This record gives sequence, C-alpha cells and structure tokens, in this order.
Amino acid sequence: MNFNSLIFRSGEPIIRSTLDMDFYKFTMGRVIWEKYPGVHTVFQMMNRTKSVRLVEHIDKGELSEQLEHCRILKPTISEMHYLRGTNEYSERMFPEGYLSYYKDRTLSLPSIDIKDGQYDVRTTDGLWLKDSEWETKVLAITNELYSRSLLKGYSRFQLEAMQARGQVRLDADIRLLRKHPGLTLSDFGSRRRFSALWQEYVVQVMAAELPGQFLGTSNTYLAMKYGLMPIGTSAHEMYMVLAGMMNESDDSIRASHRRMLTDWYDVYGPGLSIALTDTFGTEFFFNDFIEEMAHKWKGFRHDSGDPIKFGERVLRFYRELGIDAREKMIVFSDGLDAQTMVKLYLHFEGRIRVTFGWGTNLTNNFGLLTLSLVMKAILANGVPLVKLSDNPAKATGLPEQIKRIMAVFGYHPELYSYVPCIR
Amino acid sequence: MNFNSLIFRSGEPIIRSTLDMDFYKFTMGRVIWEKYPGVHTVFQMMNRTKSVRLVEHIDKGELSEQLEHCRILKPTISEMHYLRGTNEYSERMFPEGYLSYYKDRTLSLPSIDIKDGQYDVRTTDGLWLKDSEWETKVLAITNELYSRSLLKGYSRFQLEAMQARGQVRLDADIRLLRKHPGLTLSDFGSRRRFSALWQEYVVQVMAAELPGQFLGTSNTYLAMKYGLMPIGTSAHEMYMVLAGMMNESDDSIRASHRRMLTDWYDVYGPGLSIALTDTFGTEFFFNDFIEEMAHKWKGFRHDSGDPIKFGERVLRFYRELGIDAREKMIVFSDGLDAQTMVKLYLHFEGRIRVTFGWGTNLTNNFGLLTLSLVMKAILANGVPLVKLSDNPAKATGLPEQIKRIMAVFGYHPELYSYVPCIR
Repeated sequence: MNFNSLIFRSGEPIIRSTLDMDFYKFTMGRVIWEKYPGVHTVFQMMNRTKSVRLVEHIDKGELSEQLEHCRILKPTISEMHYLRGTNEYSERMFPEGYLSYYKDRTLSLPSIDIKDGQYDVRTTDGLWLKDSEWETKVLAITNELYSRSLLKGYSRFQLEAMQARGQVRLDADIRLLRKHPGLTLSDFGSRRRFSALWQEYVVQVMAAELPGQFLGTSNTYLAMKYGLMPIGTSAHEMYMVLAGMMNESDDSIRASHRRMLTDWYDVYGPGLSIALTDTFGTEFFFNDFIEEMAHKWKGFRHDSGDPIKFGERVLRFYRELGIDAREKMIVFSDGLDAQTMVKLYLHFEGRIRVTFGWGTNLTNNFGLLTLSLVMKAILANGVPLVKLSDNPAKATGLPEQIKRIMAVFGYHPELYSYVPCIR
Repeated sequence: MNFNSLIFRSGEPIIRSTLDMDFYKFTMGRVIWEKYPGVHTVFQMMNRTKSVRLVEHIDKGELSEQLEHCRILKPTISEMHYLRGTNEYSERMFPEGYLSYYKDRTLSLPSIDIKDGQYDVRTTDGLWLKDSEWETKVLAITNELYSRSLLKGYSRFQLEAMQARGQVRLDADIRLLRKHPGLTLSDFGSRRRFSALWQEYVVQVMAAELPGQFLGTSNTYLAMKYGLMPIGTSAHEMYMVLAGMMNESDDSIRASHRRMLTDWYDVYGPGLSIALTDTFGTEFFFNDFIEEMAHKWKGFRHDSGDPIKFGERVLRFYRELGIDAREKMIVFSDGLDAQTMVKLYLHFEGRIRVTFGWGTNLTNNFGLLTLSLVMKAILANGVPLVKLSDNPAKATGLPEQIKRIMAVFGYHPELYSYVPCIR
C-alpha cells in the first residue's frame, strides 16, 4: 500500500498531461474552432457548497501555481498521435487544422480573486476556444487541493484506511453492477474527482472488473493510457454561448438552440449525436427538436430533474413520432450512484437503450462531503449567460437574465419540481 | 497498493525467520532446556473446524515443503544478538547454554498423515525441547496455506478489496480503542494470522496508531524488526507435560501443577509471573495457588470461560487473602475483539489492572471463516495428556483420560457452563 496511489503529495503538480481533461472539451473545441472561432467568453468557477469556505482550505499561491503548471503543458508527440488517430465516433474526427491549433496554442492564466470566502477564478484569454479548455482542469485542481487540505495531519495509516473505505465502496458497487450484465456505464468523474490518482485507480479497476459493462472514460489522458474509449459529446456551454452570441431578439435566442444542434450534427454526423436537453428546460427542447432530428440523432443525455420522469417523457416523445425507442438511447449522468443506475436500468430495460455516465460517486467515493463545484461560461460577446436546467435550483446566471431567458423559452419552474434525494 | 502486502505468493516460503514464532516458545524453551531436557513428547495439530476439510484446500506436498523450509532455518547473527540481549523481563533471561543450544539445534520434520479429510501433523523428534518449537509455526503455515486456497481465482482488485475490508475493520477497532487511552493490549495473533504479511502490517499499524496503548507483540521476529516489546510467558503445555511426566499417582499429578509454577518462578522471578489458571480448571488453580504465590506473582492470564466471571473470581481470590487487587493484573486472551476488550476494561477499571492479548480478530480480520486450529502436546513420556480448560467443550485428550484427570483435579463441568458468544 502506498500513499501515492491515493493522491499526489503536497506541492506536486496535479495536472500532468494536457489531455487530463474531459474528452468533450476536445469535441466541442473542434466545433468552436471551425464554427465560432471569434466568439469571446468568460468562464467563472462557482462553489455551490457555500458551507465550505475554500479560502480556508486552499492557499491562493498554491492554486495559482497549479494553474500555471497546467497552463504551460503542451501535448506530447504521442498525445498528438492519439488525438489524430481518434476515430471512435467518426473517421479522423479532429482535422489537421484543429490539431495544429491545439499543439501550438498558448493558454492564458485565469485570474483568482477572493469573494465571500470563495475563490473567484475566471478565464482571462477572451477567446471561447481557449477559455473553454480550463473548465475541467480548474475543477480537478480545486478539488484536489481541497482533498489535500482534508488530509492534512492524517497519519500514514489513516490515509490507507481512507483508501480502504473507497475500495470497499467500489467493491460493493462493482458487485452490484455485475449482477446486471446488460448495464453499461462510463467514468464521467474527472471534474469532481478526489484526486487524479484515485480516478486513475478507479478507472483501471472498473476496466478490469467490469469488462463488457464499463465502456470508457471521459478523461482523455486515462483513455489513452489504458486503451479505453474516450467518452464525451457536448455540454451546456454550447447552447449557452450560442444563446448569448445570438442575443439580438427573443426569436434569435430561441433559434440559437436549433443552430447549435444543426452545427453539431453537421460536424460529427451520427457518431456524437447525443443531445443534452435541459439547458433551457426539456419541454422547450422537445418542442424544438423536429421529427427529422429525432430520427437522425441517437438520443439524449439527462443531466437534471427526475430521471424516471425524463425517461418517460423521452419515450412519449418518440411514441408520438412513431419512432421505435428501442433503437434510441438515453445517457444518464446526474448525480448517479450504483443503486440509482440499477433502478433506472431495470425501469427502462427493453423500452429504450440506456447507459450511464458516473461521476462524483465513482471518483470521490470516500463518504466525504464533496464540493458542488462548477465552472460556467458567464459571458459570451459581453452578454450574460444563463442555464436553466430541469431543476430550478440549479439555474445559473444573473436573476434578471434568468427571468428573461425563462420567458423566452417558456420555462415554467412548476414543470420541474424535482427534489433530488440526498444520500 | 500491492498484492504482496497481503500475502506471499503461492510457492514462496511462509516462515522466513526462525524467530517468526511466539515469544513464549523461547521463554518455555529456556525452562524446558534447564529443567526438563530429557522429557519426551508428541505434539499433534488438530483442526476443530471440522466443516473445513483441509485436504481439499491444502496440497500435502506444499505443506510438507513449507515445513521443510521452516525446519532448516537457522537464527542469523543479529537474531542471536537480539535473543541474547533480551532483558525486558529479567537481565539476560536467555543464558548462553540455551542460546548455544538454540543456535545449533537441528529440528526434525513433523509427519503428515491424512485422517477424515484433515491433516494429522505430528512432531517426530521426540524431545520436548525441540518438538515444542513447532507449535506456532505449524499453525501459521497451515493457516496461510488455507488463506492461499481461499484466494485462488481472486483478481488483483478482489485481493485489494479484501485487504481494504481488513483495513476498514482495523480502522474502526483502532478508533474505538483510542477512546479508552488506559486500555493496553498486545498482538497475540501469530498462530491464527491470515498471513505473515498481514500480521506484519497490522502490528506496524497498531504500533503507529496506538502509542502508549499497544504494548508489543507475541511474535519475536516482528518484535525485533519493529523494536517492540516481545510478549509471552507460558502456555498450557507446561502444565500438561508436567502432569504426564509425573503420572505415578493422583497425588503426583496434582503436585505437578505446583511444580510447574515453582520451577517457572525459580527461573524468571517476578518478570514473567503471569499464570494461566485454566489448564485443569480455575477452581483447582485457586485452591493450589498458595498465599505466598499470590503475593509474589503479578497475576493471571485468562484463556477460556466467561471472562467477567473469571475476573470476579480473581478479585474474590485476592480479597479473601487481603491482597490489594489493584496491584495485580489479568491478561485476557480468549477470542477477543475490540468491543469485548472495551467492555472488560470498563468492567474492571480501577479494581484490578487488565491488559489484552489480541489474536485471531486482529490478524485474521477479513470476516472470513477462521480455522480453530491448535497444536497440542498429546503425549509426555508415553502418557496421554489432557487439558480441561474453563470451557468443557474445549477439553482435549482421550475421553477416558479426560475423565481421570477431571477426577484427579475435582473438575465439575457444571462450574464452567459458559457458552461463548459467536460473532
């Protein structure tokens, strides 16, 4: 047993490869590079777990150092080969132009301010293409620095015992999941991981213990290192930034939603045709998602609101169009644990294909308080951005802007009154 | 995390130092060497867990090989220095004559037969002095080969998860014990350990995590390696063999009991004056343990029967002699777990000093079925031997001999009707 299999020591760099980020940062990056290279943004980190005052846990200098470590990383030759060779979703999905940009790009260090005991980390480059890349890295760094603070004063054995708790939970989860060989899942845990090393351990274990069930990881570095499928399509930021970019009128804002989906399909075709539905509420989404798209796209990703209700809503959507839902798919990815995955799998088995993107409870499974940390695009070309989601409590943006966007998209909070179960 | 921190790989030797045995084998050995060098014995291994047919788990050839590995081990120069320098209980407690014997002794390989699905392992040398040494080594080897059989087919992670379960239990136990800083304890787990490596790990952890509470280990090798107190006094075999040796009449058999205690005190003085009371029943013991001895001896070790009743009996014994029990000590060592230790500690706190010798539940704490494996002296100078204990179900020996010895010692089973709680 080795302390070093749990977490890097204090002072050591946390992000050690520029590929140590979610694959969707590449899939989106390539679209941004091709379709919206001039769009300007600001991304901001927010800690929704207000009870934890991060300034009391994390030294500002250390945070800054870690961001700088990360900033200067360049992809290695092998990493470039890997990106170039990626063909899991479509042939040569990353064109030379994008790869060349990626190899030579220079990132700008985010700014760090302190407000109400929290770190206000914001991107400073200005270009969406480059700002976007910081998201999962800033989150992984902040989480790991927070983890380090929790471990201060732990004896060697206390660290081992903690690791042991994680292993025992992982073991129990694997046993449960193994009972349902048709249940497939992927690691989506980069951003909220306890540590880089723990994610790596967990991913290795899942790959070895659940062959045929564990499909891959959202972490590009780990996918490369262990020969796993890199998993990821698009995130809310695509809808949000396009809504800001097309801010001229209510109509253009609404139109931005379809534009994003069309551009996406235009670039990747069916390979990456899994759509997030909840940026401005799933009800708007289904009104806007026309029959032709419903036929072409593989399915949807669920990221907020009641997952059962969501699945039933998807089934109704396909039923009304006469589409056989058994050829479509839902990717569940909102606060999952093993029990919930089994429950959802059994609920929808034989009715629609389902798979799971497992995050926090996989890579931060020690029973500690985990931070609800996000890094969101807050501005696009100067326009304040909004995400509504299917859980009104998760809406982000300025209050007046939220109100406006709710009106634009006909969002009725009472449609989404879902209180997720706290475990 | 490393497979090798749980158990040695198949084929690898289990006993790697001739000091890897209980310290009481040395303390008794030195007394046997001085007082009873010509006594002949046979020791036999017995598996009381009949439901486990050991021949189905352990290959006879492998068992034989492990015993041979162990047989040929000689103490290293440093180990001899260590034994020579032992002065925890009395100055130079091992005289040069005994050390010289130990350095050059040649052990004989025990015989292995198969009977009712069990291995009948018996010592073959004939001399008590040499046969005695096999006890904890044969038990440790058999237990570890059984552990290996349980792990067959485990994946790397399943081994890690098992180790994790052991760590989680150990962690919980340490947390509980730490709440009672006055509770002291030692490792008595060599004979029933899951594996040599696991005992080593557990002992290291206990030493690091419970300073001031963890007093030492019965394992001489680990005591040396980690600079811990080697713990051990005498075992039932001393009383049993002397009873066989002095088999001329009922009177001489009864007299053997006092002889053993007198010889022991003669050799070690107060340093090792903790007496086992239950070989022929604790009631006989207290009748035989005269006032002078009660004053001189430090106290008693409990190894069978109800520990609370035992402690109260000890208190009554001292009270009737007008001795302040707060200057005396009980060492509890029968099937302990952390909860039981705390319970006993709190029950007797301030009335008599107590400490604990923690065995199986410390070093084989994975929640697996553990074997009730013993290796007992069954013959001394041709006389069949008997141990009664304070739990009639634990009596060992031939039925007619048990009956005779019960009569000799006035043993009434109904005095000892204790059913230990099964966890």
